[in-house]
Amino acid sequence: MIFYDCATAPSPRRARMFIAEKGLTPETREVSLAKGEQLAPEFLAVNPGATVPTLVTDTGLALTENIAIAAYLEASHPEPPLMGQTPEDKAEILMWNARIEQQLGMAIAEALRNGNPHMKGRALPGPDDFEQIPALAERGLSRTRLFFDRLDAHLANRDYIATDRFTLADITGFVFVDFARVVKIRVDDTRPNLKRWYDTIAARPSATL
Amino acid sequence: MIFYDCATAPSPRRARMFIAEKGLTPETREVSLAKGEQLAPEFLAVNPGATVPTLVTDTGLALTENIAIAAYLEASHPEPPLMGQTPEDKAEILMWNARIEQQLGMAIAEALRNGNPHMKGRALPGPDDFEQIPALAERGLSRTRLFFDRLDAHLANRDYIATDRFTLADITGFVFVDFARVVKIRVDDTRPNLKRWYDTIAARPSATL
Repeated sequence: MIFYDCATAPSPRRARMFIAEKGLTPETREVSLAKGEQLAPEFLAVNPGATVPTLVTDTGLALTENIAIAAYLEASHPEPPLMGQTPEDKAEILMWNARIEQQLGMAIAEALRNGNPHMKGRALPGPDDFEQIPALAERGLSRTRLFFDRLDAHLANRDYIATDRFTLADITGFVFVDFARVVKIRVDDTRPNLKRWYDTIAARPSATL
Repeated sequence: MIFYDCATAPSPRRARMFIAEKGLTPETREVSLAKGEQLAPEFLAVNPGATVPTLVTDTGLALTENIAIAAYLEASHPEPPLMGQTPEDKAEILMWNARIEQQLGMAIAEALRNGNPHMKGRALPGPDDFEQIPALAERGLSRTRLFFDRLDAHLANRDYIATDRFTLADITGFVFVDFARVVKIRVDDTRPNLKRWYDTIAARPSATL
């Protein structure tokens, strides 16, 4: 396996954390988004979609979405299970993973990419350029705050986001909750359940990578 | 199981098609989005997120995302397999499913919800109201056409979107490619590979439901 990573971006951090929780240490190559290396011919030959993370399997299949990387590693390295073992648990974990991606990850990305002067003309990841839409930055901030509130309410009487153990949903949630700092939204005592959960996940070795 | 469906919307159609391909016939209740029934107290008691599809399992778990419904049914009713059996196949199917959701499904939804006068103030699904952003409607149209082109190129030498058999990725792709008609983008002879694949999937009994 070869893992194409980027130390500064949230999407590759999700895969990095999943890989670490599985105890795996694949060959890793850094792709600097700051330097635009995702658009260099060498990387486009690996992933024409120009996104990280990308995991190339031993059979040469290039996996370019977090859900695909997680599903591959869960099936090929089942221990410890991070995506559930019963039909109900598998479904609950993927449901929360999808909610977090759509309602939090997308919202932060919209706020950042449409509001940051450094991302002018690059409002979406990938090979195509799109102009910024200022109203979308505003909407992203509102949705991020709304989802922080929902997650705080959801965590009132639970230790983890889905099922009763640490899963993929906690990885996705932790990485995006943490990344919201880039749009100046932070976890604090105003959302005590979210803070307790955040501090628990932040203490895991995989969260420090 | 109880399946909450809506005959006119693409997201519940994805679940409906998956259920039919599994040969299942759960108790089904129609939720009319046209009448706003997803916001009625009776349905919010089932799914506070106010979205269809929702599948309530026999243990009372309400699954509200297509990926969760699919994962639950694949694990509880493995035949015929629609989400792959090897690590590589599972990953490839989820990778294409995610790409289609993000790059096509989202794009069509943005074009429709931000451009249709009937959806004023309802630019996102769910319990919260958001104003339309006209620039997002334009971007959605561009992205839909781009992804139609990509899918046409991808299908040049293949019968199905992922692996060498019919899978969840074809269901998601078919439903969204078909739904693009609402923003006046249609499959035709200008994208012959896409058209051949579309006609093949459209001939399945599950596609007529």
